[in-house]
Amino acid sequence: MQRRDFLKGAGALAAAGALAACGGKEAPQVAGTAAAKPRETIKWKMVTTWPKNFPGLGTSANKLAELITEMSGGRIEVTVYGAGELVPAFQTFDAVSEGTAELGHGAAYYWKGKSEAAQFFTTVPFGFNAQEMNGWLYYGGGMELWAELYDQFGLIPAAAGNSGVQMGGWFNKEINSLKDLEGLKMRIPGLGGEVLKRAGGTPVNLPGGELFTALQSGTIDATEWVGPYNDLAFGFYKVAKYYYYPGWHEPGTTLEAIINKKAFEALPEDLQSIVMNACKVINQDMLAEYTARNNSALSTLVEKHNVDLRPFPDDVLVKLKALSEEVVAEVAAKDAFSTRVYDSVKKFRKQVQAWHDVSEKAYYRAREL
Amino acid sequence: MQRRDFLKGAGALAAAGALAACGGKEAPQVAGTAAAKPRETIKWKMVTTWPKNFPGLGTSANKLAELITEMSGGRIEVTVYGAGELVPAFQTFDAVSEGTAELGHGAAYYWKGKSEAAQFFTTVPFGFNAQEMNGWLYYGGGMELWAELYDQFGLIPAAAGNSGVQMGGWFNKEINSLKDLEGLKMRIPGLGGEVLKRAGGTPVNLPGGELFTALQSGTIDATEWVGPYNDLAFGFYKVAKYYYYPGWHEPGTTLEAIINKKAFEALPEDLQSIVMNACKVINQDMLAEYTARNNSALSTLVEKHNVDLRPFPDDVLVKLKALSEEVVAEVAAKDAFSTRVYDSVKKFRKQVQAWHDVSEKAYYRAREL
Repeated sequence: MQRRDFLKGAGALAAAGALAACGGKEAPQVAGTAAAKPRETIKWKMVTTWPKNFPGLGTSANKLAELITEMSGGRIEVTVYGAGELVPAFQTFDAVSEGTAELGHGAAYYWKGKSEAAQFFTTVPFGFNAQEMNGWLYYGGGMELWAELYDQFGLIPAAAGNSGVQMGGWFNKEINSLKDLEGLKMRIPGLGGEVLKRAGGTPVNLPGGELFTALQSGTIDATEWVGPYNDLAFGFYKVAKYYYYPGWHEPGTTLEAIINKKAFEALPEDLQSIVMNACKVINQDMLAEYTARNNSALSTLVEKHNVDLRPFPDDVLVKLKALSEEVVAEVAAKDAFSTRVYDSVKKFRKQVQAWHDVSEKAYYRAREL
Repeated sequence: MQRRDFLKGAGALAAAGALAACGGKEAPQVAGTAAAKPRETIKWKMVTTWPKNFPGLGTSANKLAELITEMSGGRIEVTVYGAGELVPAFQTFDAVSEGTAELGHGAAYYWKGKSEAAQFFTTVPFGFNAQEMNGWLYYGGGMELWAELYDQFGLIPAAAGNSGVQMGGWFNKEINSLKDLEGLKMRIPGLGGEVLKRAGGTPVNLPGGELFTALQSGTIDATEWVGPYNDLAFGFYKVAKYYYYPGWHEPGTTLEAIINKKAFEALPEDLQSIVMNACKVINQDMLAEYTARNNSALSTLVEKHNVDLRPFPDDVLVKLKALSEEVVAEVAAKDAFSTRVYDSVKKFRKQVQAWHDVSEKAYYRAREL
């Protein structure tokens, strides 16, 4: 999913006064050990693009805040604000850039209005999966490019969560060939929507809260969301017949933390390290959580709710991939920086695909022969 | 690889006096901020099963030490010892258990002499890949079982690195059918070796330093090691014709940090959190490093050194998988705790495979149609 439109209605979901319960605790004073002795508590605000406590995404933002407080022995206290509590979801970037909040949690592709290149740091159709994204970010030059992009906004970025490969979506029409995409009314925003449009479909944008009713009434034929863990909670299985895979449009969605650069630079080095490494911990943690929870949710959907789980036909995927390459290349051509990022992505992709062909992919295949 | 025999000769590789260069730094005292004020520096030793600075493995142990020092603002200084510097590689577990060192870095499958179950916390043939392993450890009950096992030794375990799917190995004989495994002399220790033996092969154990010569002279027909990044450095391409994949015997090798429980419990809570979360950071970091570096090494091997990269034939993989199930089930039957761990693994595996069939695996397939 891209959550832009879902989040327009997020204010209503978030209890206005329900601020984070992750207040700092006193640094323990253990006799004879080198306990920290806080001189003053640094109070940070974290604004997020998620409704407060939204499973997986909002809860990971909470964990990030708690982890910073815990590792710093209470020297930093972080108060988390859900979308609309302090600022609307899509003012998260500006709020942290301007220093209204010191921290933000969201996804870079929401900020494509600032730079088209931002989308490469979240996910693009037929792009990296989670493991490849981390390889590129940490050891393939990705983080350096991301930092360069955000520096002009007074921000430091960090990868802080990954959903893994998402699902293709919920459909009330069978997709047996390319012809079935023609005229298909599907809720799929962003680059995925543009790809669907070029395949003859009609991408539409609806807030998350309206998707259930829209599917039920036939206003839309299909919708993508995230994966079994989040989709089960939304109850889509009650109003859609087919659950298609894989999520070609979001194969490894990276969430981000953004940090106000001035606030960061005012920290002593140990706290700077704690903040950046807490993001890394959450980056891994969210993927592990989705890996574990998607699988039990999928089993509930298939075994209890008799969901009809289907792969997209090969010719459909081939076409969507070709169109995705076209759409992503157009994004990359929009400005010089986007071109640089895309060149870096392409170089890493060529090699990592060759490696994963003989490792991860070959292993998945081998064990199910 | 399992590094047991390689490491018997590791003392010679490690410069006796070359201790870690990761000494603590003073916690910065920034006026007006809540900088830590260390009262006393805690000096910890980390013993490892790797030669000092061994690429990927030893260097990750170094990074773990540095990260603890950095996040703690120098309140903990960790000195890293390569295999044989303070204790031999395979006394790492006992050394940390007894408090000779506070920290260790190695792999749980080295300690199967303590409990057969230990192997499940590293890797088993046809077991979890890295992403699945993290799902099981952090959200599927794996960490709790691992902690329970090590608790009786006064140790706290943490996942602290992952190699990803390894390679099947270097061969001087083509493997075109099951018949080609008969009489095959291959260096492959541990459970993988037992599987090869049941397939008619002759598993042998040789120290890593002897593998090159053994392949060259024909003493062995084949050897497994790790993956392109480590294998390229060893120069196996000069003495073996075929590089087979995938590494069915080690599909997601998890490295471990072990922490002396008494030393850990003497730390204030913030430092406890820093130590455990530094391990999580390194767990993700090593996988990202291997993902990035394996792929460029593979490209060098194939394009520059004309390595003949080959998949194991399907019927060979089917047989190896069936034998692996047999061997792993026998391990699990050896004691009640191993049975519990295996039951947990099987339950998680059933679900995560179903999920990855429609996500990661389906996506790998889709993008190369």
